[in-house]
Amino acid sequence: MAGNSIGTILRLTTFGESHGPALGGVLDGFPAGILIDEDFISCEMERRRPGRNRFSTQRNEQDRISFLSGIMEGRSTGTPLAFMIANENQKSHDYSQIKDIYRPSHADYTYSMKYGNVDWRGGGRSSGRETSARVAAGALAKLFLKEKGIEIHAGIRAIGRIKDESDDFSWPFGNDFDAVNSSFVKAFQDEIDRAREDCDSVGGIIECRIFNLPAGLGDPVFDRLEAGLAKAMLSIGACKGFEYGLGFRSTSMRASEINDEMCLKDGKAHFITNNSGGILGGISTGECVTFRAAFKPTPSISRPQRTVTKDGHETIIEIKGRHDPCIVPRAVVVVEAMAALTVADFYLRWKAYE
Amino acid sequence: MAGNSIGTILRLTTFGESHGPALGGVLDGFPAGILIDEDFISCEMERRRPGRNRFSTQRNEQDRISFLSGIMEGRSTGTPLAFMIANENQKSHDYSQIKDIYRPSHADYTYSMKYGNVDWRGGGRSSGRETSARVAAGALAKLFLKEKGIEIHAGIRAIGRIKDESDDFSWPFGNDFDAVNSSFVKAFQDEIDRAREDCDSVGGIIECRIFNLPAGLGDPVFDRLEAGLAKAMLSIGACKGFEYGLGFRSTSMRASEINDEMCLKDGKAHFITNNSGGILGGISTGECVTFRAAFKPTPSISRPQRTVTKDGHETIIEIKGRHDPCIVPRAVVVVEAMAALTVADFYLRWKAYE
Amino acid sequence: MAGNSIGTILRLTTFGESHGPALGGVLDGFPAGILIDEDFISCEMERRRPGRNRFSTQRNEQDRISFLSGIMEGRSTGTPLAFMIANENQKSHDYSQIKDIYRPSHADYTYSMKYGNVDWRGGGRSSGRETSARVAAGALAKLFLKEKGIEIHAGIRAIGRIKDESDDFSWPFGNDFDAVNSSFVKAFQDEIDRAREDCDSVGGIIECRIFNLPAGLGDPVFDRLEAGLAKAMLSIGACKGFEYGLGFRSTSMRASEINDEMCLKDGKAHFITNNSGGILGGISTGECVTFRAAFKPTPSISRPQRTVTKDGHETIIEIKGRHDPCIVPRAVVVVEAMAALTVADFYLRWKAYE
Amino acid sequence: MAGNSIGTILRLTTFGESHGPALGGVLDGFPAGILIDEDFISCEMERRRPGRNRFSTQRNEQDRISFLSGIMEGRSTGTPLAFMIANENQKSHDYSQIKDIYRPSHADYTYSMKYGNVDWRGGGRSSGRETSARVAAGALAKLFLKEKGIEIHAGIRAIGRIKDESDDFSWPFGNDFDAVNSSFVKAFQDEIDRAREDCDSVGGIIECRIFNLPAGLGDPVFDRLEAGLAKAMLSIGACKGFEYGLGFRSTSMRASEINDEMCLKDGKAHFITNNSGGILGGISTGECVTFRAAFKPTPSISRPQRTVTKDGHETIIEIKGRHDPCIVPRAVVVVEAMAALTVADFYLRWKAYE
Repeated sequence: MAGNSIGTILRLTTFGESHGPALGGVLDGFPAGILIDEDFISCEMERRRPGRNRFSTQRNEQDRISFLSGIMEGRSTGTPLAFMIANENQKSHDYSQIKDIYRPSHADYTYSMKYGNVDWRGGGRSSGRETSARVAAGALAKLFLKEKGIEIHAGIRAIGRIKDESDDFSWPFGNDFDAVNSSFVKAFQDEIDRAREDCDSVGGIIECRIFNLPAGLGDPVFDRLEAGLAKAMLSIGACKGFEYGLGFRSTSMRASEINDEMCLKDGKAHFITNNSGGILGGISTGECVTFRAAFKPTPSISRPQRTVTKDGHETIIEIKGRHDPCIVPRAVVVVEAMAALTVADFYLRWKAYE
Repeated sequence: MAGNSIGTILRLTTFGESHGPALGGVLDGFPAGILIDEDFISCEMERRRPGRNRFSTQRNEQDRISFLSGIMEGRSTGTPLAFMIANENQKSHDYSQIKDIYRPSHADYTYSMKYGNVDWRGGGRSSGRETSARVAAGALAKLFLKEKGIEIHAGIRAIGRIKDESDDFSWPFGNDFDAVNSSFVKAFQDEIDRAREDCDSVGGIIECRIFNLPAGLGDPVFDRLEAGLAKAMLSIGACKGFEYGLGFRSTSMRASEINDEMCLKDGKAHFITNNSGGILGGISTGECVTFRAAFKPTPSISRPQRTVTKDGHETIIEIKGRHDPCIVPRAVVVVEAMAALTVADFYLRWKAYE
Repeated sequence: MAGNSIGTILRLTTFGESHGPALGGVLDGFPAGILIDEDFISCEMERRRPGRNRFSTQRNEQDRISFLSGIMEGRSTGTPLAFMIANENQKSHDYSQIKDIYRPSHADYTYSMKYGNVDWRGGGRSSGRETSARVAAGALAKLFLKEKGIEIHAGIRAIGRIKDESDDFSWPFGNDFDAVNSSFVKAFQDEIDRAREDCDSVGGIIECRIFNLPAGLGDPVFDRLEAGLAKAMLSIGACKGFEYGLGFRSTSMRASEINDEMCLKDGKAHFITNNSGGILGGISTGECVTFRAAFKPTPSISRPQRTVTKDGHETIIEIKGRHDPCIVPRAVVVVEAMAALTVADFYLRWKAYE
Repeated sequence: MAGNSIGTILRLTTFGESHGPALGGVLDGFPAGILIDEDFISCEMERRRPGRNRFSTQRNEQDRISFLSGIMEGRSTGTPLAFMIANENQKSHDYSQIKDIYRPSHADYTYSMKYGNVDWRGGGRSSGRETSARVAAGALAKLFLKEKGIEIHAGIRAIGRIKDESDDFSWPFGNDFDAVNSSFVKAFQDEIDRAREDCDSVGGIIECRIFNLPAGLGDPVFDRLEAGLAKAMLSIGACKGFEYGLGFRSTSMRASEINDEMCLKDGKAHFITNNSGGILGGISTGECVTFRAAFKPTPSISRPQRTVTKDGHETIIEIKGRHDPCIVPRAVVVVEAMAALTVADFYLRWKAYE
C-alpha cells in the first residue's frame, strides 16, 4: 500500500490503523521558526474527536498527540515534524463479530481483494480514525499560514435533506456545531436525530473558504489549485464530490450571468463578483477561494443488511456498537486540515518563483 | 510554471501554447509492445477538434499528430512517446484586440500576476487547445487498457438547463453528439443554439464510466482512485466539479438507501447495487466505475462586458471571433482521455504488487 | 527541511533528532503478507549500534525498535510500516559545551545558515544516529528481497591507509568485523587504534554486492539503477564517493581490457566477465551488482581545532566525549540498508511492467 | 520505460532515439522572464557535437535545436520549454550489421531483456546522442543561474593513464580541449591517438566546480546536494563513479588533515580550507562546490570481440563505423549540464523557504 503521502514540497505521510498501537504522521518540508501552539492543535483535535457531543460516537478517544521530532524550545526546527496518537483503548473484541464478514459499503471487500488479508479490527487503515493524523498536520499547516495572514474556515451547508442554500458566510459562525448559519443548527440536529432513531445515518455538505490567499498560487495545466483541492477532498473517506465557485450550479447558467467582470477599486484591478471561486486558469485570483465537499451517510448502521462472509456464504449483518449517525460535523475540521495542507504546499511552491 | 506533468509511473508531460510553434506531450512509462493504432488516435483527435459540426468553433485546426519517438515498426518500444501538433494557422493578429485587456473569467489576470508577462496570443498555455495533447496521450492510454479489456466511455448528461436525469448508460450511444441518451440530442442542440443566438454560452455535465476494471486498483488514504480521478478532472480548464457514484445526491439520502448490499452470484461475492460508483475505501471494487464532471459555460462571449486594461483603465470588452457557445461536446473525449491516463497509471501501480 | 523521503513506490520517510524524544521512520508501499522477522531486524540494528566492540563509541544506545503500524499477526498488512526508536538517554548537557560553536566539518554552520537556528544537542538531524531508522527500514526491505531470492552483503575493503585490493568476495566473510577478507581484520583494527591514540580518526571503503538480482531492473536515462544507488550512498552523511563495477579504475583502462564479452552457457547468453558491475545501460544484467562507497574520517576529534563561535569570535575547540575513531565498521549495515531499499523499490517498479 | 524525468521543481523530461525522427526534451518549472540567449545554447551544443575535432566521431550531426514552446519575444514565459533536434541523417542501414547481435558492454542485452524488443538502430535510447537534450536543457539552466551569479565549469583531469593530479583550477582554461591544465592537452591527445591506432578506446576523469553558490542549498538526509549531484552524474551513460571534495582520497587521510577549520575574515565566519568540497551535512557552505566524475572507455571498438546473437549463437563482432576513441572531451559539457540542472532545481527549492 503506497499512497500514504500527499504534497510536493510540504509533504504529509500518515500511518496507523484504528486498532494498532498508534496512529500518526510525519510532516516534512515544514518551515523552521514557526511557533508551535500546542493548545491550538489540541483544540483542533477536539473538534474532530468523537464523543464531543451527542451527535457523534460516545467512545472516549483521547487523541492526545505526542510530538516525536522537529520542535525545539516551542518552535519548529525545520526538520520533519513527527507525531503520534496512541490507541489507548483498543477494544479489538468489539469487532470480532464482523471479523469474517464484508460490511456493506465499507472497504472490507476491496482491502481483502488488494492485500489478501484484512485488518478486521475496526476498519484498520480505512477507519475514519485515520483522519486524526490529518487534523494534527492540518493544524500545523494552519499555524504556518496564519503567519502569512491566510485563514481557512469551513462550515456545514447541508445535513441530509436540510439544506442551507444561502450564500453568506461570516465567520465566526456563532455556534459550536459549525453550521455556517446558526439558524440551521436545530434543523440539522433534528435531521441527525431522526436518522439515529431509525438506526440509520445521513450525509451532508461542507463549504470551505480560504481568506487572504495572495494571487498567483497554483500551476497551470495539471497542478491547478482546484485540482489539488479536489484530490485532497476526495482523499477523505466519505467524500463523494467536490465543486468550487458555483460548481455544478454553473452548468445550467449562462456565461453572461457568471463571468466575473472587473473594475478599478483604489486604482487596482478588482473583481466585481467572485463566481469563479477565487481561482482562474488554475491560479488563485486573490479573491476568497470557495469550495464545497459532499459527504455520504456513514455506512455503519445497525439495521439488518444483506452481505456475504469471506468464506462464501450469504448472511445478514447488523453492525453493533455506537456509531455516528452523521460524521459531517466531525468532518468540518478534516476539510479545513486538508485544505490547509494543500494551500501551504502551494504557497511554498509559489514562493520558489517569487 | 511547473505542474505540466501528471501520473506516477505512467506520466504525461505536456507543452505548448495555442499560438506558438507547436503543442505536444511526452508520455513516459508506457509499456513496450503495444500496437499503436494511429487511425484510432486520429479518430480521438477528431472528436476534440473544433469545426467538427456547427456546435463548435469553425476554425480549421488540423490537429495532425507527429510522433517523434517511442515507436518502431508500429509498436511501442518502451521509450518515451513524444508527439507534437504543429500550430499551422497561428493568426496572432486575431488577438491583438485583446492584448492589453483582462478578459473576464479568463486566466489573463492570474497569469499576469504569476508570470509578470502574459502570452496574449489566444490564451497561450491556458487555451483549451492545450487539451489536444491530453487527447493524444489518452488515446495511447486507451490502447494499452484495451489490451487489458478495460474500456472507458463518457457521454453528455446535461447542457445548460436541459438535464438527462436517467440512470441508464448503454454504449454505443447511437448518436455522434455523444449524448448518453439519443432522445436528448435535439434538446441539447437547441439549448446551444439559443445561447449562440444570445451571443452567450452554456455549460453542462459529462458522465464517464470505466468498464471491466479489476478489483484492487487505487491506494488507501491519499492516492485513492477517486482522488486521482478528481484531480484529473479538475485539471481540465472549464471543469468546476466532480462526483462519483451517487455523488452530491448521496448527501440527502440515508445509508439504508444507498449502501451496496452483497449476495453470492455464481459462488462469488457480488454487489447487488453499485451506488458506490465502483470504488470503496479508495480501491476499485470490480464494478463499473462511474463519475460525473461539471463544466461551466465558456467565458468567451461577444456580449459587452466590464473589465480593466493592464495599464489600469476601466473598459468594455466584446470578444470577437468564432467562439464555441458550448465546449461540452468537445470535452467528452478530454474527460475520457484524463480518465484513461489516470486508470492506466493506477493499473501499473497495482501490477507492481500483484 | 524537505528531503526526508526516498523511493518512488517503496518509499521511506525518516524523522527524529539525536536528542529529541525519538527517531523513526515510515516505510510506505511495502507489500502485504511478508513475514516480519523481528529477530533479524534486531540483529541488523545491533550491527549499527555503537558500543558493540571497542572500535566504536561506548555510549549504550539501546536502539530498541517499536513498530507502530502495518503488522498483524507477524506479517505485513500492506499499510505503512511505522517504527520508532526512543532516545532513552538524552544527555543534552553533554553538548552544552559546543552549543555556541561551529564544529569543523560538521553540519553546524550549514544548518545555522539554512534554518536560522540549530539544534545543538549532538548534531540534531545531522547526527549519525539518524541512520538507525535507515537500518530498520533496510532490514524490512531485505526481508522482502529475501523472499525473491535476492541477497545484499557489504564488507570493508579499506580502513585508512590499509587497503585490501583483492577482488574476491565470498560471503559469509568469517569475521564479525565485516572485513571482506579476514586476513585484514588485525591490520584494520590496528589502523583504527593508531588513530584513537592520536586523538584522530580514519575513514575507509565499503564494497557491496547484490546477488541474484534478475535482469531488467532500472530505467534508462535518469532512473538508472546505478544512479539510484549513487544517490542512496551519497545520502549517507560521511560518504564522499561512489563507484560501480571497475569504477574509477576503469578510466585508465582500455575498452578491450574491460568490455564484458559474451558466450553461451547452458544454451543461454552469458557474460564471460562482469567488469560492468552487473549494470549496462542503467539496467541490471542478471550478474552480481557490485559497487563501492568511500567514507571520510569522522570529523569529531578531540584534538584542538580552530573555529569560530556563532556570535562571531575565533576560538579553539576540543570535542570531548567518546567518539568513534572510525565509523566505517558501523556503516557497513547502513550501506546494505540503503542498497536494499533502492533495489526493493526498483524491483517493484520493474514488476509493474512484467 | 519510465525514468526519463529528473528534478523536483525544475524538471527535465527527455525523449527520442538516436535514429528516430527526433530527440528533445521538455523543461518544466523554468522561471519566467529569463533572457533566452540562443547563441549561447548553440555554443553549448557545439561543445557536445561529434566531429568538432579529430578526437571525436566524424559524423556530421547538425544538432540544430528548435524551440516548440515557452519563449515569447526572446524571454521565457514561465510555461514549459519544449525543444527538439531533428535526426536528419538517420542511416539505419549502417546498423543492420549489428541488428541481431549483443554488442559487448552495450545496453543491447539489457534492453532486450527488459522490453522484449530492441531498437537496434544505433543504440536507440541508450545512444550517447540522448545527451544532446541534456546539453540543451543544461544551457537553459545555466542562463537562469547566471542571473543569480552562479557559474559552473568542468574540465578534464585524466585521459586514460595520463593524469593531472594538481589541484589548481582557473577558468577559463585557455585551451579548447577543456583540459583543466593546458600543459596536459598534448599528452591527453596523444593518449587518445594511441587508443585510436590500436582500434581501442580510453576513458577519463572530469572535474567540475560550481562557483558563487549561496550557503543553504540542499536538504538533509536523502535530498542532500551531493546525492542529487551523484544521481545526476551516474545518470550519464558512461559514468562509473562520482566523488566530491577529497572523495576517495579522503578515505586514507586523518580528520586532522582534512577537517575544514574556520576563522574570521572581514568579521564573518570563513573556511580556511575547502576539503569538504563546498558541502557539509548535505547543504552548500558557500564555498566552491567541487566534484569529479569517472568515465569508462566507450565500448564501441573495432577489435574483434566474442559475443552471442539474439537467436543464441556464439559469434565474433567487429564494430564498424567511425566511433569515438574517447568520449571524455564531449562529456565535459554534459557534466556541466547535469550539474546546472541539479543546482537550478535545488536553488528553487531553497528559495521556497527563504
